[in-house]
Amino acid sequence: MAAVAGGVLAKAVTRSGGLGILGGGYGDKSWISHEMGIVGAARVGIGLITWAMADGVLGAVLEHEPAAVWLAFGDPSPHIPAIHASGAVVICQVNDVDEASEAADAGVDVIVAQGSEAGGHGRSGRSLFGLVRGISAAVPEVALVAAGGVNDQRDYEAVRELGAAGVALGTAFYATEEALDVPEAKQRLVDARGDDTLRCTVYDVVRGPEWPTQYDGRCVRTEFTDTWVGREDELRAVVEPFLARYAEAVEQSDMSLRVVWAGEGLDSIDAITPAADIVQRFPRVMGIGM
Amino acid sequence: MAAVAGGVLAKAVTRSGGLGILGGGYGDKSWISHEMGIVGAARVGIGLITWAMADGVLGAVLEHEPAAVWLAFGDPSPHIPAIHASGAVVICQVNDVDEASEAADAGVDVIVAQGSEAGGHGRSGRSLFGLVRGISAAVPEVALVAAGGVNDQRDYEAVRELGAAGVALGTAFYATEEALDVPEAKQRLVDARGDDTLRCTVYDVVRGPEWPTQYDGRCVRTEFTDTWVGREDELRAVVEPFLARYAEAVEQSDMSLRVVWAGEGLDSIDAITPAADIVQRFPRVMGIGM
Repeated sequence: MAAVAGGVLAKAVTRSGGLGILGGGYGDKSWISHEMGIVGAARVGIGLITWAMADGVLGAVLEHEPAAVWLAFGDPSPHIPAIHASGAVVICQVNDVDEASEAADAGVDVIVAQGSEAGGHGRSGRSLFGLVRGISAAVPEVALVAAGGVNDQRDYEAVRELGAAGVALGTAFYATEEALDVPEAKQRLVDARGDDTLRCTVYDVVRGPEWPTQYDGRCVRTEFTDTWVGREDELRAVVEPFLARYAEAVEQSDMSLRVVWAGEGLDSIDAITPAADIVQRFPRVMGIGM
Repeated sequence: MAAVAGGVLAKAVTRSGGLGILGGGYGDKSWISHEMGIVGAARVGIGLITWAMADGVLGAVLEHEPAAVWLAFGDPSPHIPAIHASGAVVICQVNDVDEASEAADAGVDVIVAQGSEAGGHGRSGRSLFGLVRGISAAVPEVALVAAGGVNDQRDYEAVRELGAAGVALGTAFYATEEALDVPEAKQRLVDARGDDTLRCTVYDVVRGPEWPTQYDGRCVRTEFTDTWVGREDELRAVVEPFLARYAEAVEQSDMSLRVVWAGEGLDSIDAITPAADIVQRFPRVMGIGM
């Protein structure tokens, strides 16, 4: 949800009863500052991609006095003391049981179990079902939130049975009026189904940055993924012209080429709605992925 | 569960209140005949790998008067009339929503949604959570059973929330006294965790047969998978000596090399038990994967 979950969406989620999370992603301080200006006094968290955090980013984020900092994709431990000192909650997203145990040992307050169903970046290894069971057994003392393909009350009841205390939604909030993207991208979320998503790395090659090798990302299948998935090395070798073509595709909303990150839960998404409609499906909801 | 779910296990599952399924796999008629002799009068089903079914296999299977035939990994439609004519139920295992719709159109009686969490062969695309939601919405008229990482009552309650009527267990029944494998293999199911499993094709290369390209299989990580996953073409090029080494590893129960198919649900498996103990965890259970 980097750059998709802006101030308008985060604020709307919080105002309707959830905890909105600003998608701070790679840590663009001026974007975060601008969007937090939109948030104003609403209580929201800020998400960051841990491995991409440059020096000074966390300090700049904490100046906005977020209610929580959501760290994903990397070791949270170096950042925990500063976040706690600021009074914010540390939310740590993990992709397997070992990572959850390490995060618990490091002192995080909330663990988000991100199954491989989830849209956007993550890991292919563990799916939500067994991941929630495994983490809830391994670290029962830490609040556990389930993420990945979760859309509504039925999904919520299911993850509660598996041991989660709550849910975090990404793709479901992408399909809202408040999300920051063009209508063509949001329409893909409505038109495509779970079967039409796949995990791959080809978009990291053409739009950059390349991610650490353990990560890939789930997106809606396109002509581009049909052509290049499984041929990543070949793509890297001829990438130069694609960099400009990709930027142009984004500019022109050419949906045969540009990426739309999305989770397997697309089967339950059939309209673009206000974010409040999503939040109100749940007794209580935890907000937006990063 | 091909060749692991033999007559003793299938009979034990049925006798304790489930529906045992004999793992007929690639369709070895003499193995099936021998194991059905052990089953005797107990009411069980027989599972077959659809793409591998040779002429005459289905006829031979139906002579054993199974309660059900479980077809997985291929188009079930050519086989449905003969199965129905025999009085048996057609169970069809699917890996995505489209396959479920096709199976429903073809007239199957029960759909098994196999998530990518499942042990053994399958597809990487869809995880159980969203797959059950998607299929239950797309084909609400067909009985839906969830498979992949399901072990106990909590998992059962979760899949019921998602829209399944019941569950099918594979790995959970592999970890029983009645399953056909050496103690060293079963002990891996106890010792390894969900994080230690992965989907790959390297075992299809060294033990054969090679599967249609859309399929891979989830197994416990080994020194062999650590070495060769991601280098499958290279392995194929040097496979000759590995064929004998693999056969030898099986003979010697060398668990650094030989495969143990297993699902992500290993986190909930901590002992080898009688099959009846597994069945009794559930209000009602559907048996064994194929």
